[in-house]
Amino acid sequence: MPDPDRKLSNGKSRIDFQTDPAAYRHWKLTVDGDIATLQMDVDEKGALFEGYELKLNSYDLGVDIELADAIERLRFEHPAVKVILLRSAKPRVFCAGANIRMLAGATHAHKVNFCKFTNETRNGIEDASETSGVATICVINGTAAGGGYELALAADHIMLIDDGSSSVSLPELPLLAVLPGTGGLTRVTDKRKVRRDHADVFCTTEEGVKGKRAVDWRLVDEVVPGSTLEQTVTARAKEFAARSRRSAAGKGIALKPLERESSENAVEYSALSVEFQRAQRIANIAVRAPDVGPPASVDAMLELGCEFWPLRLARELNDAILDIRVNELDLATIVFTSSGDPAQVLAYEQFLEENRENWLVGEIRGLWKRVLKRIDVTSRSLVALVEPGSCFAGTLAELVFAADRSYMLIGRREGDNRPAAVLMLSQTNFGAYPMSNGLSRLASRFLADPAGIETAKTKIGSMIDAEAAQALGLVTVALDDIDWEDEIRVFLEERASFSPDALTGLEANLRFAGPETMESKIFARLTAWQNWIFQRPNAVGEAGALKRYGTGQRPRFDTTRV
Amino acid sequence: MPDPDRKLSNGKSRIDFQTDPAAYRHWKLTVDGDIATLQMDVDEKGALFEGYELKLNSYDLGVDIELADAIERLRFEHPAVKVILLRSAKPRVFCAGANIRMLAGATHAHKVNFCKFTNETRNGIEDASETSGVATICVINGTAAGGGYELALAADHIMLIDDGSSSVSLPELPLLAVLPGTGGLTRVTDKRKVRRDHADVFCTTEEGVKGKRAVDWRLVDEVVPGSTLEQTVTARAKEFAARSRRSAAGKGIALKPLERESSENAVEYSALSVEFQRAQRIANIAVRAPDVGPPASVDAMLELGCEFWPLRLARELNDAILDIRVNELDLATIVFTSSGDPAQVLAYEQFLEENRENWLVGEIRGLWKRVLKRIDVTSRSLVALVEPGSCFAGTLAELVFAADRSYMLIGRREGDNRPAAVLMLSQTNFGAYPMSNGLSRLASRFLADPAGIETAKTKIGSMIDAEAAQALGLVTVALDDIDWEDEIRVFLEERASFSPDALTGLEANLRFAGPETMESKIFARLTAWQNWIFQRPNAVGEAGALKRYGTGQRPRFDTTRV
Repeated sequence: MPDPDRKLSNGKSRIDFQTDPAAYRHWKLTVDGDIATLQMDVDEKGALFEGYELKLNSYDLGVDIELADAIERLRFEHPAVKVILLRSAKPRVFCAGANIRMLAGATHAHKVNFCKFTNETRNGIEDASETSGVATICVINGTAAGGGYELALAADHIMLIDDGSSSVSLPELPLLAVLPGTGGLTRVTDKRKVRRDHADVFCTTEEGVKGKRAVDWRLVDEVVPGSTLEQTVTARAKEFAARSRRSAAGKGIALKPLERESSENAVEYSALSVEFQRAQRIANIAVRAPDVGPPASVDAMLELGCEFWPLRLARELNDAILDIRVNELDLATIVFTSSGDPAQVLAYEQFLEENRENWLVGEIRGLWKRVLKRIDVTSRSLVALVEPGSCFAGTLAELVFAADRSYMLIGRREGDNRPAAVLMLSQTNFGAYPMSNGLSRLASRFLADPAGIETAKTKIGSMIDAEAAQALGLVTVALDDIDWEDEIRVFLEERASFSPDALTGLEANLRFAGPETMESKIFARLTAWQNWIFQRPNAVGEAGALKRYGTGQRPRFDTTRV
Repeated sequence: MPDPDRKLSNGKSRIDFQTDPAAYRHWKLTVDGDIATLQMDVDEKGALFEGYELKLNSYDLGVDIELADAIERLRFEHPAVKVILLRSAKPRVFCAGANIRMLAGATHAHKVNFCKFTNETRNGIEDASETSGVATICVINGTAAGGGYELALAADHIMLIDDGSSSVSLPELPLLAVLPGTGGLTRVTDKRKVRRDHADVFCTTEEGVKGKRAVDWRLVDEVVPGSTLEQTVTARAKEFAARSRRSAAGKGIALKPLERESSENAVEYSALSVEFQRAQRIANIAVRAPDVGPPASVDAMLELGCEFWPLRLARELNDAILDIRVNELDLATIVFTSSGDPAQVLAYEQFLEENRENWLVGEIRGLWKRVLKRIDVTSRSLVALVEPGSCFAGTLAELVFAADRSYMLIGRREGDNRPAAVLMLSQTNFGAYPMSNGLSRLASRFLADPAGIETAKTKIGSMIDAEAAQALGLVTVALDDIDWEDEIRVFLEERASFSPDALTGLEANLRFAGPETMESKIFARLTAWQNWIFQRPNAVGEAGALKRYGTGQRPRFDTTRV
């Protein structure tokens, strides 16, 4: 259940992350040559939960699910697109940010999940630019307040109409006693590099900043008079398109609806199964190797489109993780297992590696990178069980390295004729999927021992058995059949017995060793402080600012400085 | 009042950070040539607050105040010391960490302040090694649990006795549902570079790790049999001393008790005054330039000892900030002002610059660096008012750059014959005092505009008036006399009206643009998550683990994963 206090407007019991443009209620996506226009036009009556309306282009998780979908589709379905124009279809308002009534009535868990997903969506907008050369230009007509301006901050270029009233603002602190927590503060300091004292003034000024000052303070890239807005937007779009390194060759592939069958304790996808053991507070995610080998050519891959196994699995895994995050709040642990022929998985790796210059291969790897990052910031204990008959090879081995712990069985089980467990590495494990700290999972793992990475590289393509994998430092522990069952059971019981909050904090610290990037700072520094504030009575108490907003009553604060 | 719920054991109303070895109740400091031994021997009956005992070398803020004092004294009073042996005087226990009863009964504000100070102390141990070449060797005989192991982690070298029972552990998560939040997790991942899955096992295992595994997992540097412990300790101390770059020339200077006079609304020091305007929730810190010029020689400076103005002011400012942090929880804003001749301040800067190779000059600059860092992580709004007759020059100008905002008055005031306000820069402002992000305050300020730093450099030694300072980007705003009073009043009222928590979160994000270091990660990522957990019922609620510890009742957790 996503939120025990509120009902979903569509009458369902789970939040669904699958959508498509025909179903959008809040966005209009149009494509014209190499320019796409993504217009925000939030349907007031289209809230995800009952109990609030989405006025003034304010948003909730439902609005953001559509936005995330649109960005993904532009990458796969429209490879010719080089520029996204992000605009509002409403007069005099760009976007009023996250809906305050939604936030005020949400559980702590929903607030945190909402912020995490919206952060991932905005990171995805930047990733489209960085990785695929799809630049976003944000055109602000009217007010871009709070989350509205945070959305703009994800763009490569921010244009603000110079009409004497249109402005950008981050009024969260003065109005609501919370932070601009969807990357806002971090992008202001680290991306826009706004001077610290200007940022202080900006973030404490309800009405925000407009006109020339917005440019001088680096809050927007240009202000444009209304009379020349459209021609300037067209000119900028052309400039950014001309600079794009997106090859724009070929036509896109359709992201068809996922094959997915839900029952009470399971979700069955084409390439993975999810099983909920709710009494033990466990979600089992079992991924499957493909039955057939990779296509004979790039054209054959394009023909397969979203049926192509690596893409299909990435989309399904993404959906499964999101489903667990927001709909299965009580589960403590995600257990990754796999089955199939690891050599078959490596054959696909080989195909992708050989065709890495192809746009679709690039997008598929980019999607895997994002899905794996999503797993990294998923606040559940992650464990990989590497057992006979498993196929943790190449990209799938990243699940082992993404896990908090991994257990690998030595040899076969009695009466089980599946081959003994092996790990297999590919070139992919050495840089294709950086974590938010900028390092590969193996580089993060071997921070103390860079030679360990070199040794692992020499094993690319080899079948690494359990004892070898332990010796190489690739798994936490190799166990024989006698110890396996007890050891795993005790571990899973222990995990379920710990404080869920303490585990969340532990993960946030242990999973991200080494350097920080703007992205990792958003999930660590900014998110952690926002989560703290989301627990504080000054924000969420009965007399807190978030609760009292719009009631006409002023909040009452405990003035103790902490 | 430091904690409305508890009384200080000494019957006083404020926590005092001043102490000296003769007054220590918990530590024994002995110096033998170039080796100092710092023995932890916590007096059970010597708790800072009433209501708990400090068993098994557990600590509270009072214990840490003595430790911080000892480390400072080793730097100033014992310049010959090259190695600190950090040991326990108790049998079979090194240190049991932060006292749990103390934590369980503390207000959120005290918990946060306690962690902040203990973090600063541990950073100070590392800084002594990095900056002054004073290495710390930690000798663990018995158990080093939680904060006890976190203290060890601050050392350059950790020795663990191999007696079959002595161990290191971070049992916070399984026992108390909180984090090893005094740098523990960050030092495990980023300093010791413990592999992530090993760290996961270690941090969820109450009993910890001992013997060979502690070395294999990089948790300690060596295990040593009891029979050879003392000779190995002596050998290691000699090795580290031989490698030290501390010059060890000359004899130390005594850090005499501060001149300090407290009254209800003020604290008067020799070189600064603190005034509390409690109705407005403001602390005014007014620093004063010296009356006399710098000494004629290094010998004359050594003769002055702790009376030497830059050292005297640094110690007093440090004490004033700590006093406000823990004893004046209700104050919203710290206002920095200054008075005196800025040229005189620059003359001292010049003296320090010319004699920067002298050990005492190095220590004084190091102290300023740490005091300024302490200001950076002080959770109050910081504002500098640069007015006629002020002396914000060189090191003192760092207070302007450390402020969230700065206001500078243009010209003189009517009827006031003090000279118009000027800022003056020195070489010091361009690297001598890095923030925790590794950048100078000016480099952090000019992240978007490195050319601005070069321009500022050309002004070293010049009197920069208000309008020039604004044009150079050195102050937030220059105001004339007509606007000054209203503008400042409105700002201070506004600051006092905001949610204290939201301001804390804002500061934590806006003050630290750009790169992160291990130190900044401790204050951001780790501390923020710990603060969040310190608000969660699973830790601090009536059925939470921190409250129930030692009662025989198991904690009851809300199993929702957030």
